[in-house]
Amino acid sequence: MDANLPILPNHPRVVIIGGGFAGLAMAKKLRKQHFQVVLLDRNNYYTFQPLLYQVATGGLEPDSIAYPLRKIFQGNPKLSFRMAEVLHIKPEQKVVETTIGDISYDHLVVATGSQTNFFSFADQEEHMMGLKSVPEALNLRSFILQNFEKATVSLSTQAQDSLINIAIVGGGPTGVELAGALAEMKRFVFPKDYPDLDMQRMRIVLLEATPKLLGGMSEAASARALKDLQTLGVEVNLNAKVSYYDGSILITEDGFRLPTETLIWAAGVKGQFPSGISKDKIVGGNRIQVDAFNRVSDHEGVYVLGDAAAMITPETPRGYPMMAPVAIQQGQQLAANLIRSQKGQDWKPFKYLDKGTMATIGRNRAVVNFLGQTFHGIVAWLMWMFVHIMYLVGFRNKIATLMGWIYNYLTYDRALRLIIRPFARSKSPQVYTKV
Amino acid sequence: MDANLPILPNHPRVVIIGGGFAGLAMAKKLRKQHFQVVLLDRNNYYTFQPLLYQVATGGLEPDSIAYPLRKIFQGNPKLSFRMAEVLHIKPEQKVVETTIGDISYDHLVVATGSQTNFFSFADQEEHMMGLKSVPEALNLRSFILQNFEKATVSLSTQAQDSLINIAIVGGGPTGVELAGALAEMKRFVFPKDYPDLDMQRMRIVLLEATPKLLGGMSEAASARALKDLQTLGVEVNLNAKVSYYDGSILITEDGFRLPTETLIWAAGVKGQFPSGISKDKIVGGNRIQVDAFNRVSDHEGVYVLGDAAAMITPETPRGYPMMAPVAIQQGQQLAANLIRSQKGQDWKPFKYLDKGTMATIGRNRAVVNFLGQTFHGIVAWLMWMFVHIMYLVGFRNKIATLMGWIYNYLTYDRALRLIIRPFARSKSPQVYTKV
Repeated sequence: MDANLPILPNHPRVVIIGGGFAGLAMAKKLRKQHFQVVLLDRNNYYTFQPLLYQVATGGLEPDSIAYPLRKIFQGNPKLSFRMAEVLHIKPEQKVVETTIGDISYDHLVVATGSQTNFFSFADQEEHMMGLKSVPEALNLRSFILQNFEKATVSLSTQAQDSLINIAIVGGGPTGVELAGALAEMKRFVFPKDYPDLDMQRMRIVLLEATPKLLGGMSEAASARALKDLQTLGVEVNLNAKVSYYDGSILITEDGFRLPTETLIWAAGVKGQFPSGISKDKIVGGNRIQVDAFNRVSDHEGVYVLGDAAAMITPETPRGYPMMAPVAIQQGQQLAANLIRSQKGQDWKPFKYLDKGTMATIGRNRAVVNFLGQTFHGIVAWLMWMFVHIMYLVGFRNKIATLMGWIYNYLTYDRALRLIIRPFARSKSPQVYTKV
Repeated sequence: MDANLPILPNHPRVVIIGGGFAGLAMAKKLRKQHFQVVLLDRNNYYTFQPLLYQVATGGLEPDSIAYPLRKIFQGNPKLSFRMAEVLHIKPEQKVVETTIGDISYDHLVVATGSQTNFFSFADQEEHMMGLKSVPEALNLRSFILQNFEKATVSLSTQAQDSLINIAIVGGGPTGVELAGALAEMKRFVFPKDYPDLDMQRMRIVLLEATPKLLGGMSEAASARALKDLQTLGVEVNLNAKVSYYDGSILITEDGFRLPTETLIWAAGVKGQFPSGISKDKIVGGNRIQVDAFNRVSDHEGVYVLGDAAAMITPETPRGYPMMAPVAIQQGQQLAANLIRSQKGQDWKPFKYLDKGTMATIGRNRAVVNFLGQTFHGIVAWLMWMFVHIMYLVGFRNKIATLMGWIYNYLTYDRALRLIIRPFARSKSPQVYTKV
């Protein structure tokens, strides 16, 4: 039992499931307090998801945006990391069942984030590419490059078009940033790498179901993002809903057709968490309802943070948006509240501090909403870079990412074009054998 | 036919199989001449094999030592790259059968290199780790880290020992450099990352079948390498032949036993090449016999370079050693000879220029044989780094590798400890599905 965890007398055990923005923020704030912190994650690394699209487009190495979780907590006797998947939560026994055995807790923090929401297209999922993890980003990188290699030796232009065209569904930050990055590869990289292909034929199509891009941002920002993407040669279709996709032909409800092998689904996410929380706590977007203290009612000692949590208040009838700043602030808030109880102080309810939202479109192009203002162009682009470097974990990653960006900017190149793991669409289980 | 290759009149077509040291050296020398160069490789990247062990030990990213082949030849209308596997050679028709169809040639250059030689242990191969490719290096990295995670939650010290012990078979440069790198991880990285494990128990064992390490180098160099490895805490067993390994227990002929899940086989390589060359040309080490011009007798227009070639001369009764400098020089020599024939000049026979040999053991420790001298310590270590940076392909990789080394040196860290693709021992075919 308890996965060889050290015994720390008089230190209540806080088990945190998930080393993402929320879980990490909480663990960092608790690690020197009178708690034993146990961080569980199915991976041994933390992923800075906002930059996954740059890994997918060859601009950054995975090692620049992901970070070993054990390294973050070196030399913290009060914090233990275990690489494990949580299978089931038993709130009544205060125990979690995991792939490395049962682990008991005094406080349980569910910070398991979200996964891609394919909505009604779940059955077509195996035809589509997601972008929520490092392996998915590397798969997408490999898949695009493999298709270009295939196109080079393909005999029919029809087959070639289907191999080089790329459709992105979802006009949120991920979709917009990915479309911009691909447009720059079409312009600066692919023509040099694939002289045998006519790059004029390549189409990058961004489909958004609503009337505007970047739904969460100001009208001005949305309009600017649209303009910038079109300038870069991206076909943006607003009010466009996918009605059919079979892995090679995409059709929308209004009849738009695109032959493409590559459909990247960035149209939404839904909460994910282990079983064990009673069904009546689960609300829209597959999130767990929590109060202003991230507590789950009738589940003593259980808390949910970030994307997995729906903090429903009069001001937020559908919970806070599923984004990093909310997750970070909730993690810090819950840590502070746990510390307060040890000092016999009252808990403070969560108040979200909106630090603004941003998206980059490409070289010198970004949009930022900050303090009620909308910034765009190179100013916004520099703000975007500064904030992302700042929030990256670890000195090495900050430097590596900055170096990568400087290189990309000066050379107009995206140098990371290795197909290290060929990607094959398949439903069979993942097996890595010697190669 | 001919995989959509451009038509270049009056340019004899040179098909090069394999984008390694030999194939690349030849392609570079030919690319602006009156030849159509077609480079075929099963990967879309070139691998700088001498540094694979640093990828395996988390010191460098794959992207720092591998390089996109298409990028090397951007803007060369006379050179085409095709990602393809050659299945069979038909010397009589001057055609190669590939996974992208048949390709005809005027000159065929077999530069397919070598693969791990498991000798009599071929049937235990699936228990052993090789280190000849980027995926193998990443698999080894993942496997070691996964085993440490398992050891952390393992209940028996016996099981823990078997998970954290590492055996390396083969005391050549790869084995020596890998043993040194692992010893430094044991010393500087693992104790901080795995406080729950007793690192004193970890054993790193290097087994060499002959009486000396680094067989190709001077006695002084071998002795020094042995001393340095022992100083770093590596158990070096000379005259030690593996007699049994089942994936968890290793036994040598003289009765030495080590419980270990991890056996890295660096005890030898053998030539590899597609079928189609007549059997009587194949000599020891599975290499193709060539004359002093890298020609294969009775196979007009067929040449073999580097590891795959055995250039048997009075001075080299068993061919040249299978190492990068020979491959590079043979590639340049054959290119020069092909150019000579277009100028009506006579071919020059291959003469190997020995530029020395070197191996690094760790921080400030290396051995170098150069101009009949043996260098060691920090001088040799700096020579080693200089030469490796110099031979790396591409400015970006030189910088990225140098930065990586500076970071590792200053921090005593090996930061790249992400288990991105969990490695599972298995014989089933490689399939990557969405994760």
